[in-house]
Amino acid sequence: MKKFQVVGIGNAMVDVLAHADDAFLAENGIGKGIMQLIDMDRAVDLYARIGPAKEISGGSAANTIAGVAHLGGRTAYVGKVKNDQLGAIFAHDLRAQGAVYETRLAPKDEAQETGRCIVLVTPDGERSMNTYLGVTEFLTPEDIDESQMAQAEWIYLEGYRFDGPESHQAFAKAIAACNGAGGRVSITLSDAFCVERHRDAFRKMITEDVDLLFANRSEILSMYQTEDYDAALQAAAKDVAIVACTDGANGAHILSGGQHWHVPAVPTQIVDATGAGDLFAGAFLWAITNGHDLETAARMGNIAASEVISHIGARPEADLKALFAQHGVI
Amino acid sequence: MKKFQVVGIGNAMVDVLAHADDAFLAENGIGKGIMQLIDMDRAVDLYARIGPAKEISGGSAANTIAGVAHLGGRTAYVGKVKNDQLGAIFAHDLRAQGAVYETRLAPKDEAQETGRCIVLVTPDGERSMNTYLGVTEFLTPEDIDESQMAQAEWIYLEGYRFDGPESHQAFAKAIAACNGAGGRVSITLSDAFCVERHRDAFRKMITEDVDLLFANRSEILSMYQTEDYDAALQAAAKDVAIVACTDGANGAHILSGGQHWHVPAVPTQIVDATGAGDLFAGAFLWAITNGHDLETAARMGNIAASEVISHIGARPEADLKALFAQHGVI
Repeated sequence: MKKFQVVGIGNAMVDVLAHADDAFLAENGIGKGIMQLIDMDRAVDLYARIGPAKEISGGSAANTIAGVAHLGGRTAYVGKVKNDQLGAIFAHDLRAQGAVYETRLAPKDEAQETGRCIVLVTPDGERSMNTYLGVTEFLTPEDIDESQMAQAEWIYLEGYRFDGPESHQAFAKAIAACNGAGGRVSITLSDAFCVERHRDAFRKMITEDVDLLFANRSEILSMYQTEDYDAALQAAAKDVAIVACTDGANGAHILSGGQHWHVPAVPTQIVDATGAGDLFAGAFLWAITNGHDLETAARMGNIAASEVISHIGARPEADLKALFAQHGVI
Repeated sequence: MKKFQVVGIGNAMVDVLAHADDAFLAENGIGKGIMQLIDMDRAVDLYARIGPAKEISGGSAANTIAGVAHLGGRTAYVGKVKNDQLGAIFAHDLRAQGAVYETRLAPKDEAQETGRCIVLVTPDGERSMNTYLGVTEFLTPEDIDESQMAQAEWIYLEGYRFDGPESHQAFAKAIAACNGAGGRVSITLSDAFCVERHRDAFRKMITEDVDLLFANRSEILSMYQTEDYDAALQAAAKDVAIVACTDGANGAHILSGGQHWHVPAVPTQIVDATGAGDLFAGAFLWAITNGHDLETAARMGNIAASEVISHIGARPEADLKALFAQHGVI
């Protein structure tokens, strides 16, 4: 048995969650429902404009790994924080959830701070993300421990990290070490605009290295440059062994080995959509590494996603296994 | 018209909120439902033991002032943070709520950090507070701007600050400046154990300087060293012009000018009791400085308290004025 079921690599972030209305987004040039990268000056300026906020550890792949850990999975996370108060919060929350987190800290004299994401939640529950990457931008191959990657059944790569050139090399190092020991590779496309920025690099990795592709509808349409959802799903299924694609209230599509399952979403009141895709992936990965079939894994993914969007914050608060039992999937 | 309806002085803290069960409290020597002071070593040790947490600005009087500001009141806060990330969070959240907050920062080389309170919420919604005071302990007379106190209709003093000897002098300076300009003085007893520690000092201030006393049942019983609630209320009414005493689901008692009102609590599902008394005081002070009578002020206080205990975090999330309207008090 490998030490880890899943090892995730991504942007280590603390989320700064505040409510805002559509007018505020428009006045401040914030694209609704997407992730925008901002620099420190913009982060300071925007923070001064928003209302009272809550700080909750986030980061897309980190949320996924928190989900795996919450379910009792053996899991670890790689992503860079600084030796500052927000870095301590990020590290604490992952470890307290049961994940291994040992990435070397950025030094105290590093000018950048721990990354943060100003998440503005509009009354419809949609989240608009303004990301100051900080030190997480500087995740390099040196931060990848090959022996840890070799101990992973699956590695899980966050598409957002394609925004950092050195992180491509970090991903390559992780993939080689994982594959070399018989492990498999999953990736999330993260964001349609992120796909726009890095389509060729994504495509190359997907066709050459990836076994399991996580995406949502807009991301996969952007990836395969089509408006035809089914065509995009079919194209992806030719590139990777397993496609797991979410589409909000329309549920998830899973394609593998010539089969195609459509798994309905679990209806819920959306309070904050942050983390829906992340927790879908977390529950899905936990499920397949515990011997559940792909359709069951998607059902668990949908249940986990519905839990996390029912409250503020992108990590589970209710007992997901108890919810799986209530829904009759375990 | 004075510039401020209320100026609050207290412990500036960021709350670190996590769920825990009664067994965890017992194993870690944490007194249920009370506030315990801890040092930095204990804070680090305890933080490592608790589960994933959320960081939300807190501090008892700061929550009260946030409530006044939320209601549109003219208000300011005095309490000390450091020039660190948690200090920036605390300052942002008060200002973003509309309060004036200009206390000089503790310097960067100060060994202590911004204060924090590890709040463990048990399944019954009760909160057990473990407070690392940090730099807020060093609130001194130098931090009191007499002209600001002179501009206050009311000052609001947090009983917890009786734990700092220099803060007694800071309070005395604030009271003199406020009274000298015709302003009035309110205080909250904060905590029954805090009353135990400082009963004589509290008693002296109450009889000599205080116009409005906020307390809850256990605090006022401790203050007047009796088990007879009505006797304690009557004793307090001899010491101050207005007594406002809460008692959880049993509602609030207001005594003033020989009159005595009992105002029922607003029933709600308790998620996190943190901030109930703070928000009662905030709404009460906002109400009386906007010309509402004492009974109406207590009704508003109860509505605000019921809102804040219906969610995690000690500051209002719903629109309190809209709730007042729903309940027919405005």
